[in-house]
Amino acid sequence: MTFTLSPGALAPGARIGILGGGQLGRMLALAAAGLGLKTHVFAPEADSPAFDVCTERTNAAYEDEDALAAFGASVDVVTYEFENVPARTAALLSDLCLVRPSPAALAACQDRLVEKEFLAGLGIPVAAYMRVDDAGAMARAVAQLGRPSILKTRRFGYDGKGQALVREGGDLAVIFRSLGGAPAILESVVPFSTEISVVAARGPGGAFVSYDVCENWHENHILKFTRAPARVAPETAAEATLLARAIADALDYVGVLAVEMFVVDPPGGSAGPQTLRVNEIAPRVHNSGHWTLGGAQTSQFEQHVRAIVGWPLGGALRLGAEVEMENLIGEEVFGFEQYLREPGSSLQLYGKTEARPSRKMGHVTRVAPAKPA
Amino acid sequence: MTFTLSPGALAPGARIGILGGGQLGRMLALAAAGLGLKTHVFAPEADSPAFDVCTERTNAAYEDEDALAAFGASVDVVTYEFENVPARTAALLSDLCLVRPSPAALAACQDRLVEKEFLAGLGIPVAAYMRVDDAGAMARAVAQLGRPSILKTRRFGYDGKGQALVREGGDLAVIFRSLGGAPAILESVVPFSTEISVVAARGPGGAFVSYDVCENWHENHILKFTRAPARVAPETAAEATLLARAIADALDYVGVLAVEMFVVDPPGGSAGPQTLRVNEIAPRVHNSGHWTLGGAQTSQFEQHVRAIVGWPLGGALRLGAEVEMENLIGEEVFGFEQYLREPGSSLQLYGKTEARPSRKMGHVTRVAPAKPA
Repeated sequence: MTFTLSPGALAPGARIGILGGGQLGRMLALAAAGLGLKTHVFAPEADSPAFDVCTERTNAAYEDEDALAAFGASVDVVTYEFENVPARTAALLSDLCLVRPSPAALAACQDRLVEKEFLAGLGIPVAAYMRVDDAGAMARAVAQLGRPSILKTRRFGYDGKGQALVREGGDLAVIFRSLGGAPAILESVVPFSTEISVVAARGPGGAFVSYDVCENWHENHILKFTRAPARVAPETAAEATLLARAIADALDYVGVLAVEMFVVDPPGGSAGPQTLRVNEIAPRVHNSGHWTLGGAQTSQFEQHVRAIVGWPLGGALRLGAEVEMENLIGEEVFGFEQYLREPGSSLQLYGKTEARPSRKMGHVTRVAPAKPA
Repeated sequence: MTFTLSPGALAPGARIGILGGGQLGRMLALAAAGLGLKTHVFAPEADSPAFDVCTERTNAAYEDEDALAAFGASVDVVTYEFENVPARTAALLSDLCLVRPSPAALAACQDRLVEKEFLAGLGIPVAAYMRVDDAGAMARAVAQLGRPSILKTRRFGYDGKGQALVREGGDLAVIFRSLGGAPAILESVVPFSTEISVVAARGPGGAFVSYDVCENWHENHILKFTRAPARVAPETAAEATLLARAIADALDYVGVLAVEMFVVDPPGGSAGPQTLRVNEIAPRVHNSGHWTLGGAQTSQFEQHVRAIVGWPLGGALRLGAEVEMENLIGEEVFGFEQYLREPGSSLQLYGKTEARPSRKMGHVTRVAPAKPA
């Protein structure tokens, strides 16, 4: 006798390769272990937090083709914790094993211009944008989109890095050079009331399960709090989920993805509906989905693992009337004992050795009981 | 700046040594990782499931003193997943680092005779018992305690191993030899209605947190189901918890312990109270506490880790109206996908490579909502 498996599913004991060794890779590896799966983490940093919790580890550069070949041969499926995997790395691995989500899905989300064009091509509302390759294009884009607007590098941006606000009176050449002259896009500023995320999973057969739409607060461009459910109109939440599903289907996506959106209220207190603008797609588990670990039936990490090995997706119901996630950033982690003492809270620490400013060190999840006692 | 710590507490990043590499060691290592702690698993079996999820691993015998010395020097605190750690191993390690629970607590629970005498000395009710060192003592004990009664080896019993029932007509010399002639005790059979466990944690300062008393069903002497809360009188549950606390305090215990007890109903449907007999103490996380992983605010594994590093104990509230844990034994694991499909259930697989008969391969936890929809 052996395991009863759905078509295409991997068996317990299968080996999952994870590119990237940060907290997302770490929490993916922990979730995989809970399901009896083995993990192999590939990361360039010697002190990667995910190295502490995996079956096998490779400490090498993403361009090290010998190391990649050995890694790809040692696992059944490769996934990643971040979207900036070099295209050649993904292509090389996909000759050796399953890569989920696919290199094509990755490519659609690595470059802000490609991503915007993909979304616009699906008829999904986004902020107005223009391509900016040089100072001349910068001037034309600002003339077209007005101020304030935001210049964003096409690649490698995160936590507000690679972005510059174009205000009244700002010197356009200076602003363009402030991002190193990298290929960029200019976006008009969306006058949003709330930033929300849809975190959802899609399986290899097209099954789709979404968590509650959640809302996000940032401090210094870094996510500080997520709250589920988002306080938006039910029609808005339903529309957001439909958009996420349309994106996942169009990418033939496998795994968890997060879609960040802006909610725009109707003008001047009028009675019209809220509208949405999709801001970006993260082809991976996402910080705004951390509340699901302890706050939903299945965590986003387990859900991603289930999807990429072809197992049934888990329930996504929220476990309390509301769930809040708070990031512990830099020295905030030093007070960790106070979070351990909060009744009904759970704490995750990422095992990072140094509490540098702006560094995500852990998070707290607070689940409010469905019926207050 | 650095971490704010309670007196005696270890800091995040501290290294926990775990003796034993089975599913309990594995789930302890996963819980430690969630709290940012590093783990070093020491186990004699090369294919130990816990080796897949730890920071460091040592594959050596418990008698290998060089390996133990290196292990003890590499960690801040040592704990274990099973009670049959050789006394010399525990003593050697306690010269090098904290050992929690203490070697003395371990010693009190390793030998059924010592354990019974410890319990009786506390005034805690146990089944009548007599020491059996040879065939002559066996005959005297059966004459005293009657039949049916149970012969149990003093050491190394689990899942019904090392036990033999003494029925009417059974040949006493044959029964004694069936356990290899090992030092044993004879116990009278307790006519119990329910077997319950108290799983609880005690911190280094004496803080005590108990989970709901749970009830257990066995199949072929192996735990098959646990249900929390146990369906016993509230006074019985309260008394059981008091007994567990008395035991933990008397042992100056640090960590999670489980106390198995028999519930005896009043004779012949009379109105008297239920009474309890303590059966055995497990100085460690325990199978009957697996329901807390996903079924209580803090799992027994995280609770044990919090206790041994001197951090505040977590909340122990049950997360649903009732929680059921089902062990997947041997080939039962082959149908694992059906458990992944159950709404509101969570599945743990232990990463064992071979589904041998009677082997615990994983478990399912089912949380019934507090208020049915």
